[in-house]
Amino acid sequence: MPESSLIQGRPHEECGVCAVSGHGEAAKLTYLGLQALQHRGQETSGIVSAHLNSRHRPHHRVHRGMGRVAEVFSRDDLEALHGRVAIGHVRYSTTGAPRPFNTQPLVSSLRHGPVALAHNGNLTNAHILRRALKAGGAIFQTTVDSEVILHLLSRVEHDSFEDCLRQTLSQIQGAYSLVLLHGQCLYAVRDPRGFRPLALGRLPGGAWTVASESVAFDLIDAALVRDIAPGEMVCIEPGCEPVSSFPLPAAEPSRCIFELIYFSRPDSVVDGHSVQSVRVRLGEALWREHPAEGDVVICVPDSSTAAAIGYARAGGIAFDMGLIRSHYIGRTFIEPLQRIRDFGAKLKYNPVRGVVEGKRVVVVDDSIVRGTTSRKIVRMLRQAGATAIHMRVTAPPWRHPCPYGIDTPDPNELIASSATVERIRDQIEADSLGYLSTDGLREATGQADGWCMACFTGEYPVPPTRGITKEVLENDDSVSSTMSMGNGMQRSGLEERFG
Amino acid sequence: MPESSLIQGRPHEECGVCAVSGHGEAAKLTYLGLQALQHRGQETSGIVSAHLNSRHRPHHRVHRGMGRVAEVFSRDDLEALHGRVAIGHVRYSTTGAPRPFNTQPLVSSLRHGPVALAHNGNLTNAHILRRALKAGGAIFQTTVDSEVILHLLSRVEHDSFEDCLRQTLSQIQGAYSLVLLHGQCLYAVRDPRGFRPLALGRLPGGAWTVASESVAFDLIDAALVRDIAPGEMVCIEPGCEPVSSFPLPAAEPSRCIFELIYFSRPDSVVDGHSVQSVRVRLGEALWREHPAEGDVVICVPDSSTAAAIGYARAGGIAFDMGLIRSHYIGRTFIEPLQRIRDFGAKLKYNPVRGVVEGKRVVVVDDSIVRGTTSRKIVRMLRQAGATAIHMRVTAPPWRHPCPYGIDTPDPNELIASSATVERIRDQIEADSLGYLSTDGLREATGQADGWCMACFTGEYPVPPTRGITKEVLENDDSVSSTMSMGNGMQRSGLEERFG
Amino acid sequence: MPESSLIQGRPHEECGVCAVSGHGEAAKLTYLGLQALQHRGQETSGIVSAHLNSRHRPHHRVHRGMGRVAEVFSRDDLEALHGRVAIGHVRYSTTGAPRPFNTQPLVSSLRHGPVALAHNGNLTNAHILRRALKAGGAIFQTTVDSEVILHLLSRVEHDSFEDCLRQTLSQIQGAYSLVLLHGQCLYAVRDPRGFRPLALGRLPGGAWTVASESVAFDLIDAALVRDIAPGEMVCIEPGCEPVSSFPLPAAEPSRCIFELIYFSRPDSVVDGHSVQSVRVRLGEALWREHPAEGDVVICVPDSSTAAAIGYARAGGIAFDMGLIRSHYIGRTFIEPLQRIRDFGAKLKYNPVRGVVEGKRVVVVDDSIVRGTTSRKIVRMLRQAGATAIHMRVTAPPWRHPCPYGIDTPDPNELIASSATVERIRDQIEADSLGYLSTDGLREATGQADGWCMACFTGEYPVPPTRGITKEVLENDDSVSSTMSMGNGMQRSGLEERFG
Amino acid sequence: MPESSLIQGRPHEECGVCAVSGHGEAAKLTYLGLQALQHRGQETSGIVSAHLNSRHRPHHRVHRGMGRVAEVFSRDDLEALHGRVAIGHVRYSTTGAPRPFNTQPLVSSLRHGPVALAHNGNLTNAHILRRALKAGGAIFQTTVDSEVILHLLSRVEHDSFEDCLRQTLSQIQGAYSLVLLHGQCLYAVRDPRGFRPLALGRLPGGAWTVASESVAFDLIDAALVRDIAPGEMVCIEPGCEPVSSFPLPAAEPSRCIFELIYFSRPDSVVDGHSVQSVRVRLGEALWREHPAEGDVVICVPDSSTAAAIGYARAGGIAFDMGLIRSHYIGRTFIEPLQRIRDFGAKLKYNPVRGVVEGKRVVVVDDSIVRGTTSRKIVRMLRQAGATAIHMRVTAPPWRHPCPYGIDTPDPNELIASSATVERIRDQIEADSLGYLSTDGLREATGQADGWCMACFTGEYPVPPTRGITKEVLENDDSVSSTMSMGNGMQRSGLEERFG
Repeated sequence: MPESSLIQGRPHEECGVCAVSGHGEAAKLTYLGLQALQHRGQETSGIVSAHLNSRHRPHHRVHRGMGRVAEVFSRDDLEALHGRVAIGHVRYSTTGAPRPFNTQPLVSSLRHGPVALAHNGNLTNAHILRRALKAGGAIFQTTVDSEVILHLLSRVEHDSFEDCLRQTLSQIQGAYSLVLLHGQCLYAVRDPRGFRPLALGRLPGGAWTVASESVAFDLIDAALVRDIAPGEMVCIEPGCEPVSSFPLPAAEPSRCIFELIYFSRPDSVVDGHSVQSVRVRLGEALWREHPAEGDVVICVPDSSTAAAIGYARAGGIAFDMGLIRSHYIGRTFIEPLQRIRDFGAKLKYNPVRGVVEGKRVVVVDDSIVRGTTSRKIVRMLRQAGATAIHMRVTAPPWRHPCPYGIDTPDPNELIASSATVERIRDQIEADSLGYLSTDGLREATGQADGWCMACFTGEYPVPPTRGITKEVLENDDSVSSTMSMGNGMQRSGLEERFG
Repeated sequence: MPESSLIQGRPHEECGVCAVSGHGEAAKLTYLGLQALQHRGQETSGIVSAHLNSRHRPHHRVHRGMGRVAEVFSRDDLEALHGRVAIGHVRYSTTGAPRPFNTQPLVSSLRHGPVALAHNGNLTNAHILRRALKAGGAIFQTTVDSEVILHLLSRVEHDSFEDCLRQTLSQIQGAYSLVLLHGQCLYAVRDPRGFRPLALGRLPGGAWTVASESVAFDLIDAALVRDIAPGEMVCIEPGCEPVSSFPLPAAEPSRCIFELIYFSRPDSVVDGHSVQSVRVRLGEALWREHPAEGDVVICVPDSSTAAAIGYARAGGIAFDMGLIRSHYIGRTFIEPLQRIRDFGAKLKYNPVRGVVEGKRVVVVDDSIVRGTTSRKIVRMLRQAGATAIHMRVTAPPWRHPCPYGIDTPDPNELIASSATVERIRDQIEADSLGYLSTDGLREATGQADGWCMACFTGEYPVPPTRGITKEVLENDDSVSSTMSMGNGMQRSGLEERFG
Repeated sequence: MPESSLIQGRPHEECGVCAVSGHGEAAKLTYLGLQALQHRGQETSGIVSAHLNSRHRPHHRVHRGMGRVAEVFSRDDLEALHGRVAIGHVRYSTTGAPRPFNTQPLVSSLRHGPVALAHNGNLTNAHILRRALKAGGAIFQTTVDSEVILHLLSRVEHDSFEDCLRQTLSQIQGAYSLVLLHGQCLYAVRDPRGFRPLALGRLPGGAWTVASESVAFDLIDAALVRDIAPGEMVCIEPGCEPVSSFPLPAAEPSRCIFELIYFSRPDSVVDGHSVQSVRVRLGEALWREHPAEGDVVICVPDSSTAAAIGYARAGGIAFDMGLIRSHYIGRTFIEPLQRIRDFGAKLKYNPVRGVVEGKRVVVVDDSIVRGTTSRKIVRMLRQAGATAIHMRVTAPPWRHPCPYGIDTPDPNELIASSATVERIRDQIEADSLGYLSTDGLREATGQADGWCMACFTGEYPVPPTRGITKEVLENDDSVSSTMSMGNGMQRSGLEERFG
Repeated sequence: MPESSLIQGRPHEECGVCAVSGHGEAAKLTYLGLQALQHRGQETSGIVSAHLNSRHRPHHRVHRGMGRVAEVFSRDDLEALHGRVAIGHVRYSTTGAPRPFNTQPLVSSLRHGPVALAHNGNLTNAHILRRALKAGGAIFQTTVDSEVILHLLSRVEHDSFEDCLRQTLSQIQGAYSLVLLHGQCLYAVRDPRGFRPLALGRLPGGAWTVASESVAFDLIDAALVRDIAPGEMVCIEPGCEPVSSFPLPAAEPSRCIFELIYFSRPDSVVDGHSVQSVRVRLGEALWREHPAEGDVVICVPDSSTAAAIGYARAGGIAFDMGLIRSHYIGRTFIEPLQRIRDFGAKLKYNPVRGVVEGKRVVVVDDSIVRGTTSRKIVRMLRQAGATAIHMRVTAPPWRHPCPYGIDTPDPNELIASSATVERIRDQIEADSLGYLSTDGLREATGQADGWCMACFTGEYPVPPTRGITKEVLENDDSVSSTMSMGNGMQRSGLEERFG
């Protein structure tokens, strides 16, 4: 297990998308929007803008690279992204180690003209489509699942681009929140289940913007108009009002509950839910289900702070900051120093002796993935003088891999996939352990239905076609290419995950 | 006023220092220690190691650069820093704009052999010494005040290096926590007032380490042995136990109270005080002095979180996260977008509507510098639906510049230097405003005396020789050089600040 | 006209290719081979290696980037390119200004598995194929003509990959010297006309190598075995001897004569011709056709040195270095200094007063493109004291654009396309001007037939389908995308040149 | 012996200097001038400009870095170098390996105000001065000999800066061509022997410029006014005419003859000599002293081209290009490929079989340092079919190290320091070997006296105080510091060479 996993030890979102239409500074606003979405991915960043060339034909310009938005774009790069329409994308990263990636937005020239695509989510039938498309003569130049969408778009036979897009959507399955540029026309599409969030905003001057989360709007002074509905396709022609349609048969929504528990920024409003408020209620519900005799409630900053506040408030226990997170951790060369115990977690968290010494400490966290980070935290706190450590998790045990866009470790690395709660407690060396129930989760959101909880329940709203996959992947692996790209950054083969 | 100041709007510490003696991986451990001290400075980083060359004479190797520790050092750079002794330094930075700097540790070859120096603090008589040294034929190749220490060391006439160092110390005034390498011998020195912190730690294998804050020890598994006392000089010969001495007449200690209020990491123990615990008590004391009728208490993350928890706890009001801080803000090209209001602060903070809407909000902060950031925060919160905003500050009004190493804006930019509390309240558009008193401050620390509170009271423990300065600076400015250095980074003239 | 053109003022080769099969250091040897071919392109560099993965399936690794070979590859990059087979590519560059590009080798995953391609030359029917392929559902992710080869390969319906390749070759027209990796199998293909050179070499241990020019073999101690014949396809299975075949009907060879005149390195042996020796004979022939009364013969270094030696030798006139070329010219920021006359050419060439002062100077050059550089040279020499300047060109007037892979300026920028020799002489301000005849050219090579001289004669061996092009390009331009890529390097749209 | 030496195998000049006074674009013109002087050093580049600050006091701005001029300076860097006066410096580099360096111009603030210095040459008494200065309390922050000049300037007690400079000059010995900025006043100084060249030029608008070689003037359209005489000091106040003086007692000039033989660009006019013309005459003289029965005369490009032309002309033998030099060789990772014979030289030179096969070849070179490169060349040529190889050198055997600024290998690495000509011939495996005599050298220059030929004769015009050095260096080495600097570039200790 690489050191990087130890440091990270958290679920990863795959991506964030942002788009602006109808503004002279479209690329710059997209750049700012991506900065607000940077928590959704720090590995790669990219923007494509659309403008009219000297012959008044639409032209796309693209700038992409490895790293955070602020690292990838220079002022000159932004200036070169002409046009009143732009889409952008950020992709997740691990700390300290290069990982598989494929930079988005994808750009392509097809019979409809230039098309660019940014995708958040994961298609469950990408490998089947990929195999079929290859058999039909398609060549794949990336290993990202989103590339199949472009191939389908180009092969579907309809006169209008929009009809092609509709038919393409009917062929892909799984999770997708897309922003797509066809010429200067912007499309925003959310899959029928609505796995990943997508929202529509309006800028002061009347321009339109689309983003994974409403925090992107806050930063650029745009107002959140509404969420794009599951199954909805919004088309924004240059200078026009958005036109909405629902190209696919309606399905039962199944929004990713983990967006509320962990991924989204607390200051976002996702599908009508204030993320921070939901998290506080998660903590309150957790107290009701698993009260603990503690002297102090602490969080694992920053993601579980709200829930810890809720837990402490409901339980009438003092809330305090018993773990401090370093925000300056970058690529660190630590191998020669392996003698230093638990080094990875130490780089990220440090206990506050003054807060935990001599106290019974309740630690509220939002997930336990492999259990190794939790154990490190428990040990750190005990070493800092905590007399008892009660671990509380604001979600049910994470037992099943996510085929819809969360970077899941190998199923057998998910500690809860095989161990009982008591066994996990033992492994992480806590004095007690409590997970929130799925009912508690539903109740805290204030919305009983419409959630995807497959990672807890194994009930997949869209079947991940797992059986087929194994064989397919083995065949497909023989042709997948491992790539490295300039500037010392390596790009190893993206295993098409799961389905 | 540049956008960068708007974004920042906070006091800046100048530096952090770290050293290791007696370990085969001295430079790597120093590198990790600097990472833990990165909050004290992100503009430049440097390490000097000492080893014996092929003729068994001490040799210094140095690697320095602009940026954070993780950016400046490659694995190869660290490998090249041979030796069992090393000292390191980080220096503060502003976000988004280049600022004056001089990279440390300084290295030099003088009659005693190779000498390297890392300095936290600010000398109050540097300009006078500089002028005198120049008159005596010294040439200055940096604009950092610490360079005078090397010149004095070389000019003082004593046989032993240590005697030279003692006499040098008798000539410098102001704030200094130093780590200094003479050959392979490490010196750690703290000025008689003890303005800046400095602590001694021990590594598992018996090696010694010195650092500005104990968090550096936590990361490398070292134990905090004790703080280095004001006026103390600790000398660590290779492989020997530290030898302590007090070369200067004792003085009344005057430790910087702002280290506890704001600068130090909450998980540090500084001069016996758990920073987090002191901050919680500051919030409690603030409630006693300035209670507010509020529905929710929020902090300005991350520095005032502890105090807000204390305030909420003492007042029996709910604590919540009403402002979210982005940790991904880098150099951002925002000029073309000036039409977007309050852009700077927005990049850093975003309100959580669900927390503040319809509520009377108490905002606990640790300082108000110019007032512009506070006003932005107040406006943001009001826009997010807060019905009343009560600002509470865990320190007295900051009225006077700091000559001891805090980056103070021009005195007339300090809003409290001219405005009354009521006037400040009006300017920041808060419904009420309360500052903690100096007595409350003392009480919260649990230690009545021994603090420097000059920035609040104007009572300077060491006179900043202000009158002389103006004239001197004008003369001296004629010879100061504005420098820029490779790789597009610019290095403009360091105004020798204040004294 | 950008300054960069003034500086350059020379024809550009498009690319160089290199490959190694059967050597444990295949990528490193390819890297060295590309260094020897660097004169054929300095804008982008790339290598793809093939190895077997843990399941014993072929896997491709790629590293590509902007810049020269030595800039693009770090030691670690080379180490990561595992495998006993590798192909590489360099692409031309202009000095001082970013220009259109698409990095090769191209990599793809298609139904046959992983396929990588490096291409020197230009397809004349690429736009037609591209349009047809798009109509058939293909998506283009680069703007390089070579991408059509991969699409065709994937769409052609044959059982064996080699049959697919044969049929693909039957569909493409124009100039191509290819190295192609299918799994671990290396193919080297030269178009039936043999426009661009391609040679086969053998390494000491028995490994095989293919390269655009024999200089690549010299550097890696390989022996030139033979040139790959026009229309030949060589297939090298791992560890096997090359197998040769001729998949297409034979055609009259038409090797690019400009390779001998200008592009190839003088120390190369191209299709049996020692380049240096041919150039000396070109100079001798030029003397016979256009003797000049001169006191000294000078060259425009380095490309016309051999011809000037030949001219001087035949004419019994002293040869000397009257122009010195700077080899350190990089990206230079010269706009603010436009007042300095003829700045561009000055950066590259400087006259030697001691050689030309008071003399009648014969300048031997290999081409006149726009005439601006020639005029600058004439003026420089006159200013340095030359009393007469006789310009002699070792080729016929360059009147027609090249559709086979030479970067030709817009036809109406070719001074000889509209002006008579006398008019050109007048424009470049020379006292006399003489071009070598096509007959002289043939004679100097010692080979009467088999040359492409279309740029001089307009007789295109393969029709460039020009009439169609205009309309096609206009349609196609609407879908071409202008791209920029990370790290401040911009990648603007590659106009699919000419046909 | 590192591979890099094999590749290089040539003497190295240490530096080039350039300055402009009285032009609004002074830094940009200096930048261009440095580009023309890039052959004198490619390791580091720097420029200091002088302007008046807002208080009308002189201010210096500096930009320096590792690499060539075009790599070190961005457009923004140049724009930031305000002012009508600027000085610049380039320093030599080896190919492929980092080497000791200290970036110039040096900048300093001393009692006279800001002073910047760029130095070409080597002081012979630097170590003695350094030791004395340290004893007197000076601290050295670089290891470059030029730093002693600044210390002396600051310590000398005179009222006027110019008097201080005069007295400083009286204390330093050896070789120095300096450009120095005091405030806005530019000084150009050449040592009394005139070891290194220095010339004065005038720009069209009336501004003045100083440079190591006249080629710098050619590029910026300046006219060569005259050489600065040995012992001369030229002072150029802003907007004034240069004022000349001779502060030191006159000495017998001893200009470095190697500037004509090898270092200077052929298009330069150095101290009245056209470099190209002198070299042609060197070749002619060499023929007269050592005629050879050859079929072709070839050069080792580019430095011996002129001499080979002269040799061929005098001997009536054909001149041709039998060795081709690659101009694209950069940092190359070749260690894993050591099995490839003579790799280093191969990267740089490649023989032309067509020119040398079956021929008796005369190779004209300008120096033999260690003999290894010559042997590689001889072997290459023989392998390419030469039937006899006659090596001719346009200088006497290089037997003695140069203390005046040429990078000499360890004396016992100089093959001619211990071996006879016959022995050298044997070692380099040539059929015959002839060196030009010192008389032949003098005659070819057309100037009998005034040359430094110490490297040939051992007669040092200024004693290098060698005896003292050994001991001094050993002491001094104990205090010299080995430095590395940011960005992965390492800066190891500069051994203060020789004296």
